[in-house]
Order: sequence, then structure tokens, then C-alpha cells
Amino acid sequence: MSNAYSEGLAVYAQNSRQAFENHLRTLISIPTISADPHHKADIRRGAEAAVQLLQGLGCAVRLVETAGNPIVFGELINDASYPTVLVYNHLDVQPAEVANWKTNPFDLVVDGDHYIGRGTTDDKGPALTALMAMGYTQQCALPLNYKFVWELEEEIGSPHFEDFVKGSLQQLVADSVVVSDTIWVSADKPAIPVGLRGLMALEISLRTSEADTHSGLTGGAARNPVGELAQIVSECYDAVSGRVKIPHFYDDMVPATDQQLNDFVASGFSVERFKRDHALYSLRSQNVRDVLRRIMAQPTFEVHSIGGGYVGPGLKAIVPPQATAKVSMRLVANQDPHRIFELVKRFIVVRHPDVRVRASAVLPPYLAESDGLYLKAISTAMEFAFDRKPALVREGGSIGAVITLAKYLKVPVVMPGLSLPEHGYHAPNEHFDWHQASGGIKMYAKYFQELATLKP
Amino acid sequence: MSNAYSEGLAVYAQNSRQAFENHLRTLISIPTISADPHHKADIRRGAEAAVQLLQGLGCAVRLVETAGNPIVFGELINDASYPTVLVYNHLDVQPAEVANWKTNPFDLVVDGDHYIGRGTTDDKGPALTALMAMGYTQQCALPLNYKFVWELEEEIGSPHFEDFVKGSLQQLVADSVVVSDTIWVSADKPAIPVGLRGLMALEISLRTSEADTHSGLTGGAARNPVGELAQIVSECYDAVSGRVKIPHFYDDMVPATDQQLNDFVASGFSVERFKRDHALYSLRSQNVRDVLRRIMAQPTFEVHSIGGGYVGPGLKAIVPPQATAKVSMRLVANQDPHRIFELVKRFIVVRHPDVRVRASAVLPPYLAESDGLYLKAISTAMEFAFDRKPALVREGGSIGAVITLAKYLKVPVVMPGLSLPEHGYHAPNEHFDWHQASGGIKMYAKYFQELATLKP
Repeated sequence: MSNAYSEGLAVYAQNSRQAFENHLRTLISIPTISADPHHKADIRRGAEAAVQLLQGLGCAVRLVETAGNPIVFGELINDASYPTVLVYNHLDVQPAEVANWKTNPFDLVVDGDHYIGRGTTDDKGPALTALMAMGYTQQCALPLNYKFVWELEEEIGSPHFEDFVKGSLQQLVADSVVVSDTIWVSADKPAIPVGLRGLMALEISLRTSEADTHSGLTGGAARNPVGELAQIVSECYDAVSGRVKIPHFYDDMVPATDQQLNDFVASGFSVERFKRDHALYSLRSQNVRDVLRRIMAQPTFEVHSIGGGYVGPGLKAIVPPQATAKVSMRLVANQDPHRIFELVKRFIVVRHPDVRVRASAVLPPYLAESDGLYLKAISTAMEFAFDRKPALVREGGSIGAVITLAKYLKVPVVMPGLSLPEHGYHAPNEHFDWHQASGGIKMYAKYFQELATLKP
Repeated sequence: MSNAYSEGLAVYAQNSRQAFENHLRTLISIPTISADPHHKADIRRGAEAAVQLLQGLGCAVRLVETAGNPIVFGELINDASYPTVLVYNHLDVQPAEVANWKTNPFDLVVDGDHYIGRGTTDDKGPALTALMAMGYTQQCALPLNYKFVWELEEEIGSPHFEDFVKGSLQQLVADSVVVSDTIWVSADKPAIPVGLRGLMALEISLRTSEADTHSGLTGGAARNPVGELAQIVSECYDAVSGRVKIPHFYDDMVPATDQQLNDFVASGFSVERFKRDHALYSLRSQNVRDVLRRIMAQPTFEVHSIGGGYVGPGLKAIVPPQATAKVSMRLVANQDPHRIFELVKRFIVVRHPDVRVRASAVLPPYLAESDGLYLKAISTAMEFAFDRKPALVREGGSIGAVITLAKYLKVPVVMPGLSLPEHGYHAPNEHFDWHQASGGIKMYAKYFQELATLKP
């Protein structure tokens, strides 16, 4: 059967191209921009189009209201005794500044094998591949149940996703979760992230006067809050090397093993391409292994801004009245963001008692077991679909939904990415392509087959 | 004669009140805001009104054109053999945000002894007192010649004043210069600044990428220019104490002597009032002597801003592409701003080779001889006018015109201030008062008398 399944799948994927493009065109035509309140109605229309799609494939679908945007939940239960997979994607998109695009971002352009439009690769295209794959596995009567969770607030940090999960625990019960919302390290090689960095963001602020004062009149006696915050930031970390200087900051972290670093390197990562892709003029390190360790397996300290001074044209010789530093740390397993917050806050406040420190975002890091059955199954499926062994890497960013699903459902989460670095995640002229889309359909179908026979 | 002179002066001052108020009303009604190009025509009208005023008192007047605003130059030469005094004031004013004023800033309000309006104390009122004083000394046929220089770009840093002085050296020849554009330390006691701090402003900038990058994707490997500039600022100085850490920064400075510090303290300065006047919540020092040393006789290092990061609402977890720190140092005698610039630049660039450092403003410090004949004469005149011995203090800021006049005319400059801290220099509801104005008329007339008999 397995051979027939594979051959049939290849034919199915090829034949479904027109349907995939039609569905993608429908979804792309609705500007589901979650960051912009003006698009509330579009978000609703996008959710309703998704309901249609899922119903068209036989799912029972609910639009679940939240305090923010609705969440689309579809399920297809073939038999209560079968294993159940939960597939997460998101249908909201980044804003698109039309002036920077070569085409209308909300009008799908099919250019040969390329699909150009906002949301094609992040994350509407990947969402559709899972759905199309289910079309095939249902034809094959695979003994599996399916649940689809399509979020519409991922791009704004999933503010209501945890409430949704907590309120829908019964409906969400599944044996495993699959999330495709990540990017290969190189187009040459499939990549499966097995870890995500967490995030601990904070605002450090200090006010020492009511308003600007004249630096000739007060300078020398007046405190300078921008200067003091610059000093605090420098006490926290060495900006040149990136090393955090706060005692015990690294205590709980699990360093990447040599084998894991080998896996990162095997992803096809190139330092030069990384610099080019992100338009970085220079890096803290040139060594490929060290760069990968830094972006995948090391915590960071980042200053987003030190605001409060005069930034207009020319010189305004003032002592600024207040300053706020926006800072965040990417965390890795097993750093606890709350413990880190207390550590950083105490470090600062002991030295600078009138400085205020408040947390502005908290996401724990995530690290999957690197030898789990589900990871093995998705690796097999990816190799089947793309004809190359996938690299086990880690995502340097954070995906709130993964953390939440892992926390509440307490089942393995796998993250087979389908996007390529050149697809332009969040960038103008975002695109997807049929090679990745058809590979995605095959990957999901193969993975579903693996799941149907998996004996955990 | 001296007694008759003094008695006549008291009567003259009293009788001239109406004329003073009329002249002040005329000048205040013209919004000579040099910072705002929309007021070019008002600047011209202000200059022409000043010409009228000077001509009315018998001066020969020229409007001297510069690459910017014109300068009003009036002279009254009684006899080539007499000594000549050059009186500098400025007739341009700070902008006035009408919403913050209780009255129309450009419509003089006489409220008892108070004169409310933009420019009343800075510097139109003081300019008029000198002129009115000349009215008296001319009546007395004092053997003295007078030159008046009224600038219309002081509030924007006197960008064309040096060109004017260089181009008018013959006309400006004088035996001494008097500049009244400073503020008493306390209303209780006249103050004569004998020093000005200089200024060395610079911009420190660093670009490490083309645009914002996602701190999840690049963080750890990407350089953070805001973080690096914060570190550079902290390497340059300790923001908590204010101490500059750059080697040799203090080498050339002349520290204030104990006697000079005693003079500062004798000004009536109060730490609590200083905090209140400038709305400062806390200071680097609470000790009156130390605070005065810090604002009058010590160089400073000030960060005006570290720009370049994301300062909008909420969290945007980016690595910023570039940063610029606006920094300036107040300098004291005998620090050479050019030498200091080279020192700071080398200190930074040796450690951070791709950081750019450029000078944005340079003003040398100024320190008068503290036992000169002219200082003695103005002290006598101030004590005569205000019935109290003046304190010899220093101005923490810089007055470009003083530096320029001292440099090119090579004669003593005295700086008898007439403004009070509560007059609200540069602030809404700026005002002057008849006590200071009539005192100013007496002070100038007495000083002119001293000059007429001075044998240098």
C-alpha cells in the first residue's frame, strides 16, 4: 500500500495545483492585516472564507469569538478510536506598504511557479498545503482525525490565543500538534526547528526633572537620565561581544551540544548569505558555527531604543528630563522568563534605586525532545517530500501559539517549515512557490500517514 | 559734582519711566523670533524700530547686512579724544507658544511694576536701560563716546556675528565692552559673571545594517548600534557622578579657587530654589558649594539623545540599523575645544573604529581677569544702583558674542546682568520689572561715569 500511496500522492499533488491556486487567490484577496484596526471587517471576511474552505473539505467548523479577532476551528472526526492531529496555522498577515511592492499585494500574481502576494508564504500558503493534503488522506481513508486551528492574531503576538486554548481544552484534545510557520535556513535543505527562543521584554525608565533644562544653566549638577540609562544598559551587557554581564543570567541555560551545533551547520547556513539577506554590514562573529550558536541557541540582550532626549535636527543643548530604554532578551531552554525578569530588575534597582523596571512581554523558550517519535515521523515525511534529509535547527524567534499549545495540550509539537529565506517573510513582494507548496502537500500527507500508524 | 550727578540720576530715572515703557511696548510688539523663518519681516521691522530709537537719542545708525539677519549699529562720538564704550545687546527673542501664556506675549502688559511679554527681560528691557542711561549722561556732557551693537540672531547661536565683527573692526574700536544678557543667581543680590563656559558639541554615529532586522532572526549575531553607542557614552563618562573618564580631559582646566567658590556662594544661591526653578527632582550633589562648582566652574559631559531605535508605542523587537548620540561638553578655562574634540574623538575611534565622530558646535570658554579696572568699575556701579555689593559668579552657559568681541576687539568685557531668576528667561510669561529697569539705568549711567574718568 505504501508505494501506491506515494505514487497516488504525487499524482494528487500535481492535479491539485489549480485548486490550490484558486484557494490561495481567494485568501490573498482579503487583506487580513491584524495590526491595523481598519481591517476588522477584512479579518471577519477572511475568517468566513476559511470556514467555507474547511467546510468544502468536510470539516465541522466553528468561528470562535475572542476578545480580539475570531479563531477558525475545524474538525473532521472519522472515528473516535483513531489518533487525532491538530494543525495550527494563521491567516492574518503583516501590513503591506503598497509603494514598496511591484504588484498589488492583495491580488495574487502567478508568475510561472511563483505566487506573489501578502500572506502567500506567511502563512496562508502553508495553511492550504495541510488542507489539500487532508483531501488526499481522506480519499485514502486514512485512520486519522483532523483538527485545524487558524488564528487571526499571530502577527500581533497572539494576545487572545491562550484564552482561546484554555476555553476550548475539550475540543482541542489531540495526540500531537503540527505548526508550519517557519523558514528554512537555506533553500538547499529542509529544516525542522526543534526549539524556539523565549522573550523577556522590559522597559527601564527614569525621570529626573519635569522638562528639558538648559545644559548651560543646570549641566553638571542636574542628573542626565539618558546618560544614566546608557550606563545601566552597559552594566547589563557588553554591546560589542553581546555578552550579558548580569550575574547568574546564564545559570539555567542548556548549551547546545556539539551534535546539535553540527545539525545547525548541516542546514546549509552561510554567513555571507545571512548578512546579505538581512543587509547587515558586519557581525559580532564571522564563524559559521558561532553565528548559528548565537542566533539559535544563545540568549541575547537587545536594546530597541533609548528614548527621551532631543532627536530633532541640529543641536539643542538640553539636559533631558526623562528617558526610557526598551530592552528585550531572547531566552533559551531552560531559562525561566519570570526568574530572569526578577534577576535583571534586582540587578538594576540595587544600583539605581529610582529607576523603574517593568516587564512588557514574556514568552518562555521551547525545546522539543530531539529524539521523539513525532520528530522522527516529520523528518521522514520531509525527506520523502523534498528528497533530502532535513536539518534539525532552532528558531531564534518566538511563536506564542507553539508555547501555548505545548503548555495546555501537553503533547508533542513539530514545526516543519515550508518557507524559504528568499520568500521575503514580512517583506515587500512576499512570495511562495509551487515547489514548496506541492512539497508541503506531500509532506503533510506523508506525515498524516505516519501518524495513522504511529504507536506512541 | 558726583553727588549732584547721583541725585540728578535718581530723578532722571524716575522721570524716564513713561518713556522706557513706551519704548519697551514698541519693541515687544514686534515678534522678532530669530528661530522661525516666518518672522523675517518682523526681524526687519524690529531692526528699523531700533534704528529709530537710536536716532532719537542722537546716534548715527547703520543697519549692517549679514548673510542672516541685519545688525543694528549706532554710535555717538562726542570727541575723538574721549574713551569709547561698546554696549552689546540683542533684540531677537525666543519663540512663544501662545497657549502657554496668560497674556499675549507680543502685547506688553504693565502690571504694577511688572512688564510682561516675550523679550522684556531677554534682552529688550536691558538694552533699553543702557540707552536711557545715555540720555542722562549726554545731558551731563560726560566725556565719553558710545557704540551700540544690537544683534538679531543671538537666540540661534549668533551664526553671523563673527563675520560682522571681522568686517567692521574699524567701526567697532572701543576701550571696553559691556554686555547685559545674564541672570542674577538670586533676586537678593546683584551678580556679575566673570566667566562663561565654552561648548564642544559632537555627534557620534554608527550604522551596522540597512534597516531594522527581527531580533529573533538576527539577535545575538547582529551588532546593536544603540547598545554600542550607550557603551561608548558610558566609557566617556560616569553618568551618576558626572565625572568624565577620558584621560587628559581635565588636564588644562583651571579649577576655581577657594576665594572664587566663596564668591559663588555669596551670590545668594540656594540648592532648593535651584531645584524648584528648574523643576529638578534630584541632583548629583546637595552641597551648595559643590553644586555651584559644578554649574559654574566645572566642565561637563552631557548626552542630549541616543536616537535611532524604535520609540513608538509598545514593543517592536527589532535590532536597530543605526544610532546617533548627540553629546556636548561645557568647557571651562583653559580647555581648548579643538583639543578636546581631538581627545574625545581619538578616545572613541581607537576603541570603536567604525564609529563616526563629528563636531557640531565649538565655543571656547571665557574667563575675565577677576581684578581688572573695568570689573572694579562695574562692581561699583552695580553696588551704587542696587545698594548691595554684587557677587562675582560665572555663567554656566555660553554667549557667543562675548567670546567674539573679546577675541577681536582685545579689550575687557564686563557682564552686569539685570534679569532675575523669576523673570522666566525663555519661558512662558517672561517678564521684567521697573526695579531692575530703573536700577539698570542707574547702573549704566554710573558705569559710564566711571569709564569717563578711568585711567587704564
